[in-house]
Amino acid sequence: MLNLTLVLGGAASGKSSHAEMLVRESGRSRVYLATAQAFDTEMKQKIEEHRLARGDGWTTVEEPLEIAPALASVDAEKIILLDCATLWLGNYQLAGNDPAEAPEVFAEALGHARAPVVVVSNEVGQGIVPADAMSRAFRNAQGRLNQRVAAMADRVVFVTAGLPQVLK
Amino acid sequence: MLNLTLVLGGAASGKSSHAEMLVRESGRSRVYLATAQAFDTEMKQKIEEHRLARGDGWTTVEEPLEIAPALASVDAEKIILLDCATLWLGNYQLAGNDPAEAPEVFAEALGHARAPVVVVSNEVGQGIVPADAMSRAFRNAQGRLNQRVAAMADRVVFVTAGLPQVLK
Amino acid sequence: MLNLTLVLGGAASGKSSHAEMLVRESGRSRVYLATAQAFDTEMKQKIEEHRLARGDGWTTVEEPLEIAPALASVDAEKIILLDCATLWLGNYQLAGNDPAEAPEVFAEALGHARAPVVVVSNEVGQGIVPADAMSRAFRNAQGRLNQRVAAMADRVVFVTAGLPQVLK
Repeated sequence: MLNLTLVLGGAASGKSSHAEMLVRESGRSRVYLATAQAFDTEMKQKIEEHRLARGDGWTTVEEPLEIAPALASVDAEKIILLDCATLWLGNYQLAGNDPAEAPEVFAEALGHARAPVVVVSNEVGQGIVPADAMSRAFRNAQGRLNQRVAAMADRVVFVTAGLPQVLK
Repeated sequence: MLNLTLVLGGAASGKSSHAEMLVRESGRSRVYLATAQAFDTEMKQKIEEHRLARGDGWTTVEEPLEIAPALASVDAEKIILLDCATLWLGNYQLAGNDPAEAPEVFAEALGHARAPVVVVSNEVGQGIVPADAMSRAFRNAQGRLNQRVAAMADRVVFVTAGLPQVLK
Repeated sequence: MLNLTLVLGGAASGKSSHAEMLVRESGRSRVYLATAQAFDTEMKQKIEEHRLARGDGWTTVEEPLEIAPALASVDAEKIILLDCATLWLGNYQLAGNDPAEAPEVFAEALGHARAPVVVVSNEVGQGIVPADAMSRAFRNAQGRLNQRVAAMADRVVFVTAGLPQVLK
């Protein structure tokens, strides 16, 4: 059993579906740790679409920010899908925290899990440099968070157009 | 003979050149199905540069939107280069259609082809979340369209800096 | 000994660290050719962070634009880390040059090196099409520069979340 798996990909790349498949294949009781917040109609619709695609058989825990206790609360014999690190990072930055500290905070939180965890995260650093400083700080923090989690992970998969590549 | 090949890549990644090479290697009569529209000088220049890079020996069909009949019109013993799905998606959205329906419409159109098809498409989902809703809808639709075509394709190639990686 | 290595990746992907490791592994005297300019606090901080991460044992040459003589000035038995082609391209465009000519100018400059060179460069073409023409010209030039250097290189490595993939 892998303790930590990181599933990376761009927007609408199929990364969540791939992560869900990995979790289902474990045969364990599945806990979905959702970091999304339904601020507006667009986000509500996206959350609902993901819920439908995921299907039944999941216990859902909604926790936009304080993921350490949420991870610790899941029994060791279950499995956790954390979807996703990018929305968590957005919540972390919007709450007034310094995004430069986010990689360490996120990594520390993962250490509280007793069950295996599959983390979904976005690649956001392969476009043009954003014009605003907040977006630049976000993409730097996201890149470093991905590096940090990848270094801890047993396996790292990059998903493009629904197709996985094993990076580690 | 592969029936459907998807060539993915970022802007100026060499994806069109790679797709052209795949088509030339087939030894078949080559049909270039162009979805670009020469709205302005920048686009006119890009189309001309691509035409020069492609060289002679192509029958060009220009069709920004209604690709199903264009695909159906090509004889089965020829080969089609559809360049590209991203400009088609832009045309589809600009014409007032719901981009969420684009993946299904595009996939359905591909089913009308009798000749093998090589589709060029862009990866657009690996930057920061766009600030405007129209761009977000576009990149979601593009990601899903790429997933949809990749699932149908016999082969999927990702091109970076002119170098191909076979994803499927 | 490889004469030319290209290390590609997104923002905060770990590409510089990977390139530094490749250079250290050569066992040669290390020259760091820095193209960054400390225009503002953000850039000053980034330069300082990279300097600290790099550690001691480097001779630093700062040259934002005229890299041909800087490359030529390094003895053949040393090794050069050029970090990075993307900042050089930004400097080239800001100085009023046509970015479309940048790939050829950069490639020509590399030809002046007598020592092996590891070039760091960004992938910037996998987001949404930028709204402004200057950014579009930049990302086209960056894509073509990457293709040009990749074609010349003995080895091309793409780094994601700190994990290298050999593309060539």
